Amino acid sequence: MAAHYFDHNATTPLDPFVLEAMLPFMGANFANPSATYTAGREARRAVEQAREQVAAALDADPSEVIFTASGSEANNLLIRGFADALRTEGAATTRLACTQIEHPCVAEPLRALARSGWDVSEVAVNASGVVERSSMTALPMDTCLVSVMSANNETGALQPVADLGAAFKRDRHDMTCFHTDAVQALGKHPLSFRKLNTAGVDALTVSGHKIGGPKGAAALVRDRQLPLIPLVYGGGQEQGLRSGTENVAAIVGFGVACTRAVADLEMRTLQAHRLQQHLEAWLRSRGAVIFSAAAERLPNTTFAAFPGIDGETLVSLLDRQGMAIASGAACGSGKSGVSAVLLAMGVDPVLAKGAIRISLGMMPYGATSIEAVDRLIGQLDKVLSQLQRFAAVA
Amino acid sequence: MAAHYFDHNATTPLDPFVLEAMLPFMGANFANPSATYTAGREARRAVEQAREQVAAALDADPSEVIFTASGSEANNLLIRGFADALRTEGAATTRLACTQIEHPCVAEPLRALARSGWDVSEVAVNASGVVERSSMTALPMDTCLVSVMSANNETGALQPVADLGAAFKRDRHDMTCFHTDAVQALGKHPLSFRKLNTAGVDALTVSGHKIGGPKGAAALVRDRQLPLIPLVYGGGQEQGLRSGTENVAAIVGFGVACTRAVADLEMRTLQAHRLQQHLEAWLRSRGAVIFSAAAERLPNTTFAAFPGIDGETLVSLLDRQGMAIASGAACGSGKSGVSAVLLAMGVDPVLAKGAIRISLGMMPYGATSIEAVDRLIGQLDKVLSQLQRFAAVA
Repeated sequence: MAAHYFDHNATTPLDPFVLEAMLPFMGANFANPSATYTAGREARRAVEQAREQVAAALDADPSEVIFTASGSEANNLLIRGFADALRTEGAATTRLACTQIEHPCVAEPLRALARSGWDVSEVAVNASGVVERSSMTALPMDTCLVSVMSANNETGALQPVADLGAAFKRDRHDMTCFHTDAVQALGKHPLSFRKLNTAGVDALTVSGHKIGGPKGAAALVRDRQLPLIPLVYGGGQEQGLRSGTENVAAIVGFGVACTRAVADLEMRTLQAHRLQQHLEAWLRSRGAVIFSAAAERLPNTTFAAFPGIDGETLVSLLDRQGMAIASGAACGSGKSGVSAVLLAMGVDPVLAKGAIRISLGMMPYGATSIEAVDRLIGQLDKVLSQLQRFAAVA
Repeated sequence: MAAHYFDHNATTPLDPFVLEAMLPFMGANFANPSATYTAGREARRAVEQAREQVAAALDADPSEVIFTASGSEANNLLIRGFADALRTEGAATTRLACTQIEHPCVAEPLRALARSGWDVSEVAVNASGVVERSSMTALPMDTCLVSVMSANNETGALQPVADLGAAFKRDRHDMTCFHTDAVQALGKHPLSFRKLNTAGVDALTVSGHKIGGPKGAAALVRDRQLPLIPLVYGGGQEQGLRSGTENVAAIVGFGVACTRAVADLEMRTLQAHRLQQHLEAWLRSRGAVIFSAAAERLPNTTFAAFPGIDGETLVSLLDRQGMAIASGAACGSGKSGVSAVLLAMGVDPVLAKGAIRISLGMMPYGATSIEAVDRLIGQLDKVLSQLQRFAAVA
């Protein structure tokens, strides 16, 4: 399947090297890390080693890493957890913000808070799908939380998160939080929590299954000064911020996947970028519009539309040839309609209906080859010709 | 390790049959179930098949099953989700309750709600660790949520949940919820959500890793009439109640584990009960007190103390012989101290300090053998003799 899979921003194949690290914890080393006997302590050590690996990959301290079961959970923990902490501490302000291009697992918890009385705003992006510094300084001074993703899952547009964090924090003091959902950035673009934190970023979210790791493990990496109220209470695991028996195997796999995702990043970036240029040159030659083309983007992500051709139809015709691409955000359970990200960028809704997302593999395992890209180009070419002939007859 | 593992209430070894069902989803079938192409739809079908298996094992409808990452998350979703729904609907009452013997992942979210203004009470148990029907009818009429576990994780005492649910519901009307944490009961005692629901139980929690399934998958099974607000918002997975990319492999494993955990339950119960009687006869012969001895109990669980002998010391000395037992609840990250369950039962704190929990394997995979129990008895006997000699010298 991997040779015909071009939807790596939705999820990635599990790296066999990662699976191998996980299997002992799905076999003989099955103990509960909370148990005090030897096998329990070994499971605990494995969890803590994975925490060190995640921290090292992100240039963070292990004590800053809180494991969750998904990026969605980590984003909700940060947003609802910080809002609850503000409420508990009786903070006077109730303003929260994100951008118009956030993933639903950032936008929706904020909308839920809006329904319960918080003042929530969504910051605009420019025509390239990039958040501008001025939009941060324009936020009311009593805004206490902003979430800006590091790289957009649809367009791949990178956001100047360190700059935005610094702009947001300037002249604002205690009890503010700048968060970035870095789920799409990890393993595709350099990330240093230390540097981001120095600039003004308080927390970031990463997830295992986007980087060759397993589904079921993710992390919120946050400044320990940041007040947070848990979503899940219980046995007090994860510094009391996320109770529940640790998914040891998934956490171990996530740790290994993080190590691998940041190794040779520069070389992998160059390779992916070369494929992206090759693909996009062909797409343009066939009349496609590439979204966020003027922005600095992830090297594996191409979001494009052929004017007059429906994106869902293209996805479906390619699927019949055994090729997997996406029409829009992949996490929205088969919802059709127009990409909210493109609308936020001011793209004509008619053109936006044509959007297809091609996201190449650039992890150490499952990297997309030039041959695979050429096969995709070949099939796209055939399918486009059919559709254009059909349109000409009609 | 399995032959020396007597802590199956903390977690169970992963059934190799379950692992085999999971592996394809950690290999070629890695797609995101939200993707619309063929591989995505196959992943979706696997999740839905697992939902049917969980529902069948619990005599529930698949649409009543909401997958979560842990029993803790399912319990928190029910408790906080129902309380938030009450608040949203502007309900007049603010009374919630659980028992004094609930697991922290039920007691702690309720304590958090108490800190934010809810009126929370903890219902007493009798000297056998059993909740009496009168304690339900005694709850103020405006109590809108009660959580009573099906079987206690420490003593193994079964609670008459159907009766308690009916007693709680009598004369109470709309917007009340009776919930049971059935994490320890599944696979060890018959469970029918249909029958419980008819009696007045609105929701129950089950978890994969207690029944030979993987860590990372659990479920809240609930009456669809029950209003719930999600903990995690986002892509709208799990009927909008629990967003986040599904952990397909873990969910598939959980489904298979459920099927296996309810097969031949009667025969497995008889076998476990025979081992329990054998073990407890010996424990009594060496002067141990068996807690909840007068209660109907899980057939795999023995909670006992030797007067004058510290439980932690016993656990630690047995660990040196490679044998794993617990001193108290296993989910509380190495906290020492006295069992809150025993204190609730009125057990003398000095005796309670001696508590050890032996929980045998009774799933189709990893079932404890009579030989293993005899090895445990042999080692306990040695260790006890040493300790008693030491006490005599001192």
